[in-house]
Amino acid sequence: MTESAAYVRIVEETPAYWRVLFDYPPFNIVDAAIFEGLQGLLARMDAAPSLRAVVFESVNPEFYLAHFDLTGHIGNITTAVGPTGLPILMDTFVRLTKSPVVSIAKIRGCVRGVSSEFVLACDMRFASRENTRLGQPEVGVGVNPGGGATERLPLLVGRGRALEIVLGANDFDGDTAERYGYVNRALPDAELDGFVDVLARRIASFDRRPIAAAKNLMNQVSLPSADRLLDAFSAFQTALTWPEAQQRIQALLKGGLQREGDFEKRWPALLGTLLKT
Amino acid sequence: MTESAAYVRIVEETPAYWRVLFDYPPFNIVDAAIFEGLQGLLARMDAAPSLRAVVFESVNPEFYLAHFDLTGHIGNITTAVGPTGLPILMDTFVRLTKSPVVSIAKIRGCVRGVSSEFVLACDMRFASRENTRLGQPEVGVGVNPGGGATERLPLLVGRGRALEIVLGANDFDGDTAERYGYVNRALPDAELDGFVDVLARRIASFDRRPIAAAKNLMNQVSLPSADRLLDAFSAFQTALTWPEAQQRIQALLKGGLQREGDFEKRWPALLGTLLKT
Amino acid sequence: MTESAAYVRIVEETPAYWRVLFDYPPFNIVDAAIFEGLQGLLARMDAAPSLRAVVFESVNPEFYLAHFDLTGHIGNITTAVGPTGLPILMDTFVRLTKSPVVSIAKIRGCVRGVSSEFVLACDMRFASRENTRLGQPEVGVGVNPGGGATERLPLLVGRGRALEIVLGANDFDGDTAERYGYVNRALPDAELDGFVDVLARRIASFDRRPIAAAKNLMNQVSLPSADRLLDAFSAFQTALTWPEAQQRIQALLKGGLQREGDFEKRWPALLGTLLKT
Repeated sequence: MTESAAYVRIVEETPAYWRVLFDYPPFNIVDAAIFEGLQGLLARMDAAPSLRAVVFESVNPEFYLAHFDLTGHIGNITTAVGPTGLPILMDTFVRLTKSPVVSIAKIRGCVRGVSSEFVLACDMRFASRENTRLGQPEVGVGVNPGGGATERLPLLVGRGRALEIVLGANDFDGDTAERYGYVNRALPDAELDGFVDVLARRIASFDRRPIAAAKNLMNQVSLPSADRLLDAFSAFQTALTWPEAQQRIQALLKGGLQREGDFEKRWPALLGTLLKT
Repeated sequence: MTESAAYVRIVEETPAYWRVLFDYPPFNIVDAAIFEGLQGLLARMDAAPSLRAVVFESVNPEFYLAHFDLTGHIGNITTAVGPTGLPILMDTFVRLTKSPVVSIAKIRGCVRGVSSEFVLACDMRFASRENTRLGQPEVGVGVNPGGGATERLPLLVGRGRALEIVLGANDFDGDTAERYGYVNRALPDAELDGFVDVLARRIASFDRRPIAAAKNLMNQVSLPSADRLLDAFSAFQTALTWPEAQQRIQALLKGGLQREGDFEKRWPALLGTLLKT
Repeated sequence: MTESAAYVRIVEETPAYWRVLFDYPPFNIVDAAIFEGLQGLLARMDAAPSLRAVVFESVNPEFYLAHFDLTGHIGNITTAVGPTGLPILMDTFVRLTKSPVVSIAKIRGCVRGVSSEFVLACDMRFASRENTRLGQPEVGVGVNPGGGATERLPLLVGRGRALEIVLGANDFDGDTAERYGYVNRALPDAELDGFVDVLARRIASFDRRPIAAAKNLMNQVSLPSADRLLDAFSAFQTALTWPEAQQRIQALLKGGLQREGDFEKRWPALLGTLLKT
């Protein structure tokens, strides 16, 4: 098993139903290792004709996936390119949306920025009612979201709520995320595993061709174009070079981002006073 | 009165407000007779310049409309063509969406597959809170939806919930259908008739030209293209020929579909174990 | 200060956060004076590089903005043209949606017709749970909405609920508006000011470039085209000439519209029996 495969671990419940466990201590920060793991998973999914459903979850109940690595010391996911020719981040998300396999995000803990964009690229999202902190804090960090949130959220939750999520740059709990349509449902934490397992096994019992046919038809009317996604990614790369963004990123890293668990859990709430304190 | 007109019965409450009653024992199965009845209704609607609103309901509180006839013994609704040149199923639904008359589905009981697609082609949907079983079980029967669900649901409820409805292939109760936006509202069963009647009479009191102008403007930004609808219908016809679909259809018919009321009410819940039992 | 600037009053809380107060007694009727005030505001917004967020509210808790002036005696907002070359009404709304400044509607009281279309052109909408009467009553007055509702609502709340709002032509309270997605959230009246102030100050603390970049990206996938908006506006101008519309407008003015506060508050509820009483 490669190192990245250890961070993005596959549990084959049945040939038709896999669980994928994010296990990248301490906070499941999203860096090149996570994308390498996801690319490995996609290659295995493409080679598994019996597979119907994949559930994505975290072994750490506090962090589903944290956020984009802001230290930039592991690999370079903004320049790497995937098999489709798109940047690796987009390649991963676009292939997930177009896969004939059904992807389900089972959410507990913190899911921010590129991690929120990962769950938005999954076919369905189910979240813990008590334990979900989901959001797109990028604008409060001085950049725009670059991995699809600005394209996928307006179609999912409507323009008004999408603008609130992205421009307000704060966390959403399970109930609000459900009310906004950001997740399919928020379930009591004690019921989340059971609900998702029953749904995944049910889908796994269906035939592959009707699943693929139905998903493909829905993709025609519900996915943003690659052009739009590329625009957002390019804007994000530009924004990372802005001095005001670098100032905010440094303030966050100095405050404890990617080092202290308590800060990692609550930092979006602090963005409104980031440069004052 | 023709036979099909008895199954799709028109009650002219006023010249501006009609109720249409589905009355096709025992389960209001959707076959050629229902489409013949709906085509007769559309012809009468086109010839009624005073008409403003039509409410669609069932005389059977357990079955609004059940589902597509899987025995295939009455007519052939997959090859028949309507006045628009589109297949009869699409012709019926498309003409309903483009009619200057406002269509309102008042839902009680089971509404699955093509029946769900019928209510999705209506302008508005109001459902009994206690007595609604609404869904698109096609994928669990081995085929994709062919009558517009894959095109209309993503625009109505967002990609995530649309994928859950279609790929999960299960029933939705009134409350969940409301929360997802699958219906406009779920109302307590005792209030449903009153609410819809007040709304329909209110709309019936308005002038025909502003109704037609406003609906036409909204149609420009809210209807799927005929190309997309035809793709889904063609895929459905192909899927019906797949051996895995035929195996599932035969298992359902053997289990009691279209024969036993109790099985008719609950069969989508059984789809996850259909070939195991 | 010009007269119109007194009706659309700017309070500069900080250089980054302005509040705009509608104060046009007795009912905040939307006529040429309001559009003149909004055009003045837009010019000031364009000249304020430090500005991030604008909150729109009313000094009159019973009337946010009432509705389009149906007496037609102050100016002519259907023929006036704005800096973009679009009709003044569309110019105002389109520039608001495309501004790099974030616009937030804080809603209390009556908001109907063109006023609902104003809040739909704002980036976000927050409403008083106890004190909101929001709707598009135009069809009950004999005309279609002309200021974007038929284009913006289907994208925001889905086709079914958009058709109910526009063709039902009635008021929506805060809770229903939230459930439909017509507003972002309905908040208890006592919490509304605090919630919106915290959000606006938070956004005002962010940098201008990422706000503009993110909003611009979301605009690409969430705004109706100018062609569609112009179609609706032209249809509205035509509808105003229909005798049936003029008959309804005269009945409303005779009943007390634009003269009596009590009638102004409740008139959409009476539209279903307007010509009978």
